[in-house]
Amino acid sequence: MNYRINENLCQAKLSIIRRISDLALENKQPDERVVLFSSGQPADEAMPVELVKEYTAKVIDEYGCDVIQYGGHKGYPKLFPEIRKFLNKDGEVAKEDDDFIITYGSSEAIFAVGSAFIKPGDRVIVENPTYLNATNSFKYCGAELVPVAVDADGVNIEALEEAMKGGARFFYTIPNFGNPSSITMSLEKRKAVYKLAVKYQIPILEDNPYGYLRFSGNEYIPPIKSFDQEGIVLYMGTFSKIVAPGMRCGFLCANKELIPKFVVFKGVSSSGNINWSQYIVTEFLKNVDINAHIAKISVIYEDKARAMYNKMKECFHPSVEYTMPQGGMFIWAKLPDTVKATDFCLDAAKNLRIAVVPGNDFFCGSPEDCSYIRLNFSKPSVEDIEYGIEKLGELTYKYCGK
Amino acid sequence: MNYRINENLCQAKLSIIRRISDLALENKQPDERVVLFSSGQPADEAMPVELVKEYTAKVIDEYGCDVIQYGGHKGYPKLFPEIRKFLNKDGEVAKEDDDFIITYGSSEAIFAVGSAFIKPGDRVIVENPTYLNATNSFKYCGAELVPVAVDADGVNIEALEEAMKGGARFFYTIPNFGNPSSITMSLEKRKAVYKLAVKYQIPILEDNPYGYLRFSGNEYIPPIKSFDQEGIVLYMGTFSKIVAPGMRCGFLCANKELIPKFVVFKGVSSSGNINWSQYIVTEFLKNVDINAHIAKISVIYEDKARAMYNKMKECFHPSVEYTMPQGGMFIWAKLPDTVKATDFCLDAAKNLRIAVVPGNDFFCGSPEDCSYIRLNFSKPSVEDIEYGIEKLGELTYKYCGK
Repeated sequence: MNYRINENLCQAKLSIIRRISDLALENKQPDERVVLFSSGQPADEAMPVELVKEYTAKVIDEYGCDVIQYGGHKGYPKLFPEIRKFLNKDGEVAKEDDDFIITYGSSEAIFAVGSAFIKPGDRVIVENPTYLNATNSFKYCGAELVPVAVDADGVNIEALEEAMKGGARFFYTIPNFGNPSSITMSLEKRKAVYKLAVKYQIPILEDNPYGYLRFSGNEYIPPIKSFDQEGIVLYMGTFSKIVAPGMRCGFLCANKELIPKFVVFKGVSSSGNINWSQYIVTEFLKNVDINAHIAKISVIYEDKARAMYNKMKECFHPSVEYTMPQGGMFIWAKLPDTVKATDFCLDAAKNLRIAVVPGNDFFCGSPEDCSYIRLNFSKPSVEDIEYGIEKLGELTYKYCGK
Repeated sequence: MNYRINENLCQAKLSIIRRISDLALENKQPDERVVLFSSGQPADEAMPVELVKEYTAKVIDEYGCDVIQYGGHKGYPKLFPEIRKFLNKDGEVAKEDDDFIITYGSSEAIFAVGSAFIKPGDRVIVENPTYLNATNSFKYCGAELVPVAVDADGVNIEALEEAMKGGARFFYTIPNFGNPSSITMSLEKRKAVYKLAVKYQIPILEDNPYGYLRFSGNEYIPPIKSFDQEGIVLYMGTFSKIVAPGMRCGFLCANKELIPKFVVFKGVSSSGNINWSQYIVTEFLKNVDINAHIAKISVIYEDKARAMYNKMKECFHPSVEYTMPQGGMFIWAKLPDTVKATDFCLDAAKNLRIAVVPGNDFFCGSPEDCSYIRLNFSKPSVEDIEYGIEKLGELTYKYCGK
């Protein structure tokens, strides 16, 4: 049977993150050790799994079948004020004129915005490098990606203005601990980005999955959304990293005029979110001291980041470049220009059973030559980090010379 | 801010099911009684909510954080063999060459197939009337709907062949207790439909949410998928009606060559399903005697259907036509041609606070003149059914004369 699947789907491919993890696990023997630095998963020990069990019993006792009935397309009404409180705890992010819709993680929010805004051939401005699942989603929707370089303090403003002059449906940015680069955009740049968006009337899609995972640097930089006076910023958050990714509980916060469109989209695409996870997240936000919780998990992440960084310092070839991150989940490292990240990562996955993601697919156009690799420190144990980095260290010497 | 949302989303509207329910609830006073015959929700008393609580504790004790981590895009591997066993319990439906992907209810499976197959302007053949969320989804994807009439024993075969001659991306059908009509397609017609699909090489999208909710007639009619020798049938099932809709656990069963495409789609659109609900459904399928469970809930549904039917016989104007259903969740009733269903339903919602869905949007093109109404009997209590039908009965006399 020739199914004639649409080209945009045929051209889309399984994320390199999944492919490299699969490769490391392929035909694994029982006694072989596998270390995955490839995922974006939070630490198991940072996830409140016992609370989830407790809250499940609690909400079922309290709300009965409502917990497992159909929910509304927009989301669980009691969750919205809790999210607003959470978002605005350090300063006003969600304005009076803003409203919310609950999505299956920020993934679905990204796809919903892509579907609503992009027509085939439309330009979408993205940081380069950026989150590959977002660019995959925009490409699936037909976008022509317009890459803008990123400096150490965030997107390059001149390049962004140049890109905006050509018009675009929106600008997608991860201002806090950008994935994969772990770069944070400075306050000045956030203001400049907002000004440009207003000047060129190009909406900003602000993705903030990692903002609360800061373990050093210690400064709160307000999201771009907090400057928003005219509903030009669409802000996406998720409880994947601070509660659990398996809740698939993300949200889009945008001008209330816009939300009903996404409610219709949810009706068409997946018919509303799972009530259970929304009830659990509501309980969590109501009952847990969120600042204390974030402080607690930040320690876990810092310890792991430091373990990885220190071991890299000890074992990696000195020509490899990287810095100790101040938050997030990743170390973004650069091998010498002569080394192809894909060769390095395929070798590591196949022969060491260590999964590290080559940087290629995070760059627009997935250039064949790329010497960056992304290392996740949040999910593996410290023991696995030390074992894995030592092995990878040996590999850097194979690739970078003595 | 002018957001310039895509036309297909702007044209899509919130389902009449939600709108009519909202209307009945609008500005409700505390002492006012509201009855919703508008939903497609299962009966609360048919949902194993205590088991969900028990299984949640069990799987968290057994699998820990895996229950709330990211899941695979395809779904929870242990769920697949359980679905296969379930699907094939009365005869082979899923073949050796078939594979599965888990979706957020059948809603997401419908949308995924629509997205994968439909390009703007493509023809999609649908039964007329049919499930409005499916046609909304196909229209969102750009489909030109080709309606085919339905007889008492299922789709009209001659009309279907005529439609297929013109080509189409697929034919969407609900052969068991079609929504809204509650019509079941005969075995002969299923075979004929399959033959036509093969002849014209037009895939069949077979949607079977209600097939297990048969409480009389007592015959098992194999799904069209069970005749499938060449992977031309894409079969969609869901645990919404036999476990709980809030699990948002549906699936697509199709040739294994096709599934990887949908895995990519899931990666792009929502990044995999919630593990929790897949773990719960797996436990359910492993531990519960599924035939006994279905028999138990069938009694609940039959009692409610009979309560509604008997009360309609007693209270409705004799010119209203309907039959006692043999399964499913709905009575599909026809008012006299002179009565506009929308007038009737708006009146009921606004003035009686009883939500009944007018049939218009279930028909292609949502004709303004339609005298059908859809009444859900599964969700309201028997007491609410009797109260609501009595009130609606009075309204039929207002609209149909003495």
